[in-house]
Amino acid sequence: MGFWKSLLLGFNSPTASAVAVAGRSLEVPDQGHGEVYTSDAATDSRIFFSTDRTLDLYELEELCSSVGWSRRPLRKVRKALQNSFLVVSMWEQRGKRRRLIGFARATSDHAFNATIWDVVVRPSSQGQGLGKALMQHTIKKLRNEDISNITLFADPHVVQFYEGLGFNPDPEGIKGMFWYPD
Amino acid sequence: MGFWKSLLLGFNSPTASAVAVAGRSLEVPDQGHGEVYTSDAATDSRIFFSTDRTLDLYELEELCSSVGWSRRPLRKVRKALQNSFLVVSMWEQRGKRRRLIGFARATSDHAFNATIWDVVVRPSSQGQGLGKALMQHTIKKLRNEDISNITLFADPHVVQFYEGLGFNPDPEGIKGMFWYPD
Repeated sequence: MGFWKSLLLGFNSPTASAVAVAGRSLEVPDQGHGEVYTSDAATDSRIFFSTDRTLDLYELEELCSSVGWSRRPLRKVRKALQNSFLVVSMWEQRGKRRRLIGFARATSDHAFNATIWDVVVRPSSQGQGLGKALMQHTIKKLRNEDISNITLFADPHVVQFYEGLGFNPDPEGIKGMFWYPD
Repeated sequence: MGFWKSLLLGFNSPTASAVAVAGRSLEVPDQGHGEVYTSDAATDSRIFFSTDRTLDLYELEELCSSVGWSRRPLRKVRKALQNSFLVVSMWEQRGKRRRLIGFARATSDHAFNATIWDVVVRPSSQGQGLGKALMQHTIKKLRNEDISNITLFADPHVVQFYEGLGFNPDPEGIKGMFWYPD
């Protein structure tokens, strides 16, 4: 799972980034949008997904920092979350304390197309299949909304990972393209 | 300009489509969002862009049909337009009558990323640089909204066209990927 070591997706990632907040674990305020992935009664711990987009932006940027993304203005991050069609966060909870360990979001026209951005799993949580679970959860949510065309832009080292999830690179020769100013 | 002959962009195009309405020209109800591209006083004709998203969906689907796209449910087309960040239409006006000759739209998180979909120019209007003008107008609108990462998925025969507009295929090995259900 070496390609997970520095999971970057999307071209904004190099301009994305980190707020210097050490890995915090917060009180769990609300799990109304939560969906449990794994649970261990013996250790009173579990991993769950949420689609609540009112995230602590500092915690999100600290997560992004953990995989090497650069700093993004929080004002723009907030706006991006508000205007994403889907926001999925992945949490590890021990007792009453939880920690953000993964994230993905998608833009969409709410009808035909969705594009997944900012997929990230905390390095200390990698190698356990959680990235795959995060993506499968994201795909399921998009399919539940009747989105037929799910797309993304994958860095070279994660192409194989996404292929394992059913994504095809350049199907029928279609090219992902990025505009650069002159 | 042979690559313009059947301008298809985005993977929804093969599932897109046509309503059997012959090329109509309508009274011009409102040009509040219009921006003139060319004007010819001698023939009382002009070509202009609009970002008004209250389009006649039958006319839009007739345009899409003219380049070979297949039928899309109008309910979904309406929803897609409502939830696109930007909708650009290109019109040819002669006297008081106008005709839809081009279209493009973009999804976005309103902050970092935009993805352009459904770029189309009516075959009878191709070969005059109008596709380039349509895309330049679309890029300008996105840049005016401070979107830094403008992306699209290009069919093989239009990759060269988009390269001429400043789009790079697979920059730094980044792959456009599409998900297919098992």
